[in-house]
Amino acid sequence: MATIIDFKTSGELAKKPSLDLLMKLVTQDLDKVNATILEHMQSPVHLIPQLAGHLIAAGGKRLRPLLTLGTAALCQYSGDRHIKLAACVEFIHTATLLHDDVVDASELRRGKLTANSVWGNQPSVLVGDFLFSRAFQLMVSDGSLHVLKLLSNASAVIAEGEVHQLLTTNDTTTSESDYLEVIQSKTAELFSAAARIGAVVADRPKIEEEALAAYGTNLGIAFQLVDDALDYSARQAELGKTIGDDFSEGKITLPVILAFRRGNEEEKNFWKRCLEELEQRPDDLDRAQSLIKQHCTLEDTMTRARHYAALARDSLDLFSDCEAKQALTSVIDFCIEREF
Amino acid sequence: MATIIDFKTSGELAKKPSLDLLMKLVTQDLDKVNATILEHMQSPVHLIPQLAGHLIAAGGKRLRPLLTLGTAALCQYSGDRHIKLAACVEFIHTATLLHDDVVDASELRRGKLTANSVWGNQPSVLVGDFLFSRAFQLMVSDGSLHVLKLLSNASAVIAEGEVHQLLTTNDTTTSESDYLEVIQSKTAELFSAAARIGAVVADRPKIEEEALAAYGTNLGIAFQLVDDALDYSARQAELGKTIGDDFSEGKITLPVILAFRRGNEEEKNFWKRCLEELEQRPDDLDRAQSLIKQHCTLEDTMTRARHYAALARDSLDLFSDCEAKQALTSVIDFCIEREF
Repeated sequence: MATIIDFKTSGELAKKPSLDLLMKLVTQDLDKVNATILEHMQSPVHLIPQLAGHLIAAGGKRLRPLLTLGTAALCQYSGDRHIKLAACVEFIHTATLLHDDVVDASELRRGKLTANSVWGNQPSVLVGDFLFSRAFQLMVSDGSLHVLKLLSNASAVIAEGEVHQLLTTNDTTTSESDYLEVIQSKTAELFSAAARIGAVVADRPKIEEEALAAYGTNLGIAFQLVDDALDYSARQAELGKTIGDDFSEGKITLPVILAFRRGNEEEKNFWKRCLEELEQRPDDLDRAQSLIKQHCTLEDTMTRARHYAALARDSLDLFSDCEAKQALTSVIDFCIEREF
Repeated sequence: MATIIDFKTSGELAKKPSLDLLMKLVTQDLDKVNATILEHMQSPVHLIPQLAGHLIAAGGKRLRPLLTLGTAALCQYSGDRHIKLAACVEFIHTATLLHDDVVDASELRRGKLTANSVWGNQPSVLVGDFLFSRAFQLMVSDGSLHVLKLLSNASAVIAEGEVHQLLTTNDTTTSESDYLEVIQSKTAELFSAAARIGAVVADRPKIEEEALAAYGTNLGIAFQLVDDALDYSARQAELGKTIGDDFSEGKITLPVILAFRRGNEEEKNFWKRCLEELEQRPDDLDRAQSLIKQHCTLEDTMTRARHYAALARDSLDLFSDCEAKQALTSVIDFCIEREF
């Protein structure tokens, strides 16, 4: 799959798509973002920084704030507003994760116990609210109504997407377009806002702002498609990663939607039993993986992901070749090729 | 207690403190606020308006938005920004209630099933997030950074207060000052912001803005003290109202803090068993009420409430006598005397 990297990259980094190029480009900014995050998650109520820190320190990739830093670099922004706003984006993301883990009753995230497993659901809900409020306080201190509009809209759309996803859970009749709407809202919207902010702080023309928003949207959709494929990937299982969470929760993702659509009556009944009635037996995940393999639905999910990756790449056409553009392109490759 | 009403009010309304005077004063505005709430809780994801509507239509007093409307009237504001901002305040309050009911695992609110009882915790968490985001979208469309700052600060303080309250739950060593901090954050902060907005939209001098903020803060503290007293009130039980929720959840409120402090060893052990270990027997609530009666802690809680009510009343001294001032004063009386 290395053939889709069509930019010159320095030897080592070109071999395996990673976030390294972008990380290297914005390394000082990223340190400042991390310091800002740490500073603003403090509270006299000690459980707040303790719980928030557990998740924030749990080895997240900081992908969304990296998009803000990367697009700010692409737009040759020379101020420091992007630092604070990248921290806002990460706070909103973290608040969403805390609430997601409560909603999904998840026990592990990034290989560590979730906050709700350690402290219970109650503080996870409330600390999520705190981080969300803190994000808005930070945005207000930045003072741009444009950014406030972007991120308050994104937050509402994310919440809508999460509720929509809840409604499709356990529903094997969920269509591909319903699924796309869900991932566009719950994932791509924040990618889009994060990427757009780079152009906003640099006061670039609307066409550039919209190009970066489109980059973020398409990257976000591709990212989530790959995420949903990885949850059924045999290769992931070989690597010792947890798979099958979506299956055990009855989440209806594209690999399943396609397998269900292409399956015979007996297969459809299998999916209904496992995902609608959540009546699952020990070897059901194996059966699910084998049906998914038989109907090539991981490959087809990846084909869709590559389509959105191509759109994301095209969105950057507007910008001249430079290190930042190369770094933002390598993020697309990373999102597609990570750990498959 | 009618003697503390020191303003002329027309016959009927003077008899029993109520929100009628304020409701009558801002009746048209309140209709507009209700229409704005209804309009902005819509979403293509139908569960959102369904769930939000269940709570919003469940007979709330709209006390917080009424404060915004009342203080706007006091400041002789003639525009329409207060309508949208009063709706924001109610959205933030409703989001908090949805999350509170999840955190407390409450089954009833205002005598109706809670949203989490009807639809489960998951959509309650997410619809709370949606309403919270919607509140910020509305504020952004209003366009005042001053208001955004007020309400984003208030939201963060509320979340801090809720986490703080969680930490005092089941802890009989909670001090009166800890308790005051909790109620100041979780309740009084939004009362304060709601009341302050009237002066902000009317562009009144800072001293008036701060006076109304103080009115809201003190009113909010008094309101919560009374709320916490009502939860142990025999009179409430006679009226058929639910009592004892705080007791069964092990919440440490002032009536208990005072009874614990004044109790002998055997009594302290009773409170510890019931509230720390949550090991409760059928007649424990009766015993709790009888200890509370013996140590006069409801009376003393009410004495504290009247102190804050007096401070709230004094905060209005700055303003000339008028119908709006009279109405805002009657809210204080209502908060103190409701249903005791």
